[in-house]
Amino acid sequence: MYQQFDFGIVGLGLIGGSACIELHKYSDIRIIGHDHSKTHAEVANQIGLVDQLGSLDELIAQSKTIILAVPTHVALNLLSQILDKIHAHQVVIDLCSVKSALVESVADHPNRARYVPCHPMAGTEKSGPWAAISNLFDGKVNIICDQDHSDQDAIETAKDLSDKLSMRTIYMDSNTHDEHTAHISHLSHLTSFALANTILDKEDNDQTIFDLSSGGFDSTVRLAKSSPDMWEPIFIHNKEYVGDVLDKYIAHITRFKEAIEREDSEQLRELMQYANRIKRILK
Amino acid sequence: MYQQFDFGIVGLGLIGGSACIELHKYSDIRIIGHDHSKTHAEVANQIGLVDQLGSLDELIAQSKTIILAVPTHVALNLLSQILDKIHAHQVVIDLCSVKSALVESVADHPNRARYVPCHPMAGTEKSGPWAAISNLFDGKVNIICDQDHSDQDAIETAKDLSDKLSMRTIYMDSNTHDEHTAHISHLSHLTSFALANTILDKEDNDQTIFDLSSGGFDSTVRLAKSSPDMWEPIFIHNKEYVGDVLDKYIAHITRFKEAIEREDSEQLRELMQYANRIKRILK
Repeated sequence: MYQQFDFGIVGLGLIGGSACIELHKYSDIRIIGHDHSKTHAEVANQIGLVDQLGSLDELIAQSKTIILAVPTHVALNLLSQILDKIHAHQVVIDLCSVKSALVESVADHPNRARYVPCHPMAGTEKSGPWAAISNLFDGKVNIICDQDHSDQDAIETAKDLSDKLSMRTIYMDSNTHDEHTAHISHLSHLTSFALANTILDKEDNDQTIFDLSSGGFDSTVRLAKSSPDMWEPIFIHNKEYVGDVLDKYIAHITRFKEAIEREDSEQLRELMQYANRIKRILK
Repeated sequence: MYQQFDFGIVGLGLIGGSACIELHKYSDIRIIGHDHSKTHAEVANQIGLVDQLGSLDELIAQSKTIILAVPTHVALNLLSQILDKIHAHQVVIDLCSVKSALVESVADHPNRARYVPCHPMAGTEKSGPWAAISNLFDGKVNIICDQDHSDQDAIETAKDLSDKLSMRTIYMDSNTHDEHTAHISHLSHLTSFALANTILDKEDNDQTIFDLSSGGFDSTVRLAKSSPDMWEPIFIHNKEYVGDVLDKYIAHITRFKEAIEREDSEQLRELMQYANRIKRILK
């Protein structure tokens, strides 16, 4: 069977839509899209993210490479169904932020080797096809997980996708991925959400928050605008690592609290000097 | 006695230096500067932030308006000494992030009414005269505290400084200021410092942090680069409010942790939806 579309993108939100924008910079690439939200699909079509809309089955039948750009719990639901239906030369790639749960869900699937788990470390706090932007992925890292469990040509397809998105590719096993992202990505979101909730509890005057936000609050709380639809399944499906890292974080913030209570200037400076080492890494 | 300089800036770091840049946009304004660090003073002079360097006593004797742009504990040490030495027509303004401790330290000083406590809500995570930038204060809020305790002409001088820095001026009592900033500014810094420490404990490979930082970590952890010299006295001198807000924050983050442990998707979504209200306020 001949697949007339180079890519079938399932999920036309921020990530899927921004991937469409990059892929369409190659004039010969044709994309079919699907979104379970009629509004998202219609908008994606109207703003030209896709060449054609289709049902999920049409997309599966007609795409050389199928990309899942949906929340983790939706991907968990769709992945094995899609692997059931593909032919031997098709490739399925997911772009979810949690990997072990997905990988385990299809570990014994006969078409497992046609699937490549990916995580492009890029995003904004916005969502929906109207949030899709050019150059979202530019220079960022795409993590390909468990490369030995996929066919070589499928890995090459995923690497080629990284290249087309202008991303650097790194390789990691899915378990290590989940542990690192719990620390570096998932924790940042939780600290921002909790920060927002603390402030919103206290400040009943929006103007005060707005007026005082330029003291650093605005950048620190930015991730609290993120989509609950996307993040709820990430936290739940990575709950072991996320729980562990939250314990460590609470211990760290408690250390600050106790040093302040004791007026222990020296300890407080040491804690901040330790944190300052992040300057070496992030400019 | 005639003061030949319009402004005397004590502390030529990020804030003092950036104030010099704005004030020098008015071609007739002349600035004398002082910094206890010879290096800071010399650099500030070489890059033209000030028209002249001087000792603290020279600066006090020769400036119409004296601006304290130093860490809180230094201001606590200098403020009453400076008020001791000024003449009745001079004005002293401090730009520290904590106000009650400073205000209380000179509550009974005979020259109290010549002093105006200010807090320009602007900054970056950088420090030193080389970090001074143009437009740092542009459109941000300057808080003038306890206006009834200062002479009317001193308040007008502080308001004029706000205007020259292109800031919006709001008025607040110093206690209310300290409570709000504990929530909106000081807490953001503490959550960032603790976030950095959690990650630095875990990740012994700087490259991994760098590679994965684009998932939102970079903006959330930015404030962890801030100066311990500046922040240690802020936390200590605002310890009642900061301790209180840390308790509330830890309760909020614990709520997230427990919802994740219970796999309580509904509760988790509710917590995030509550946090999302910050979108209404900060674009």
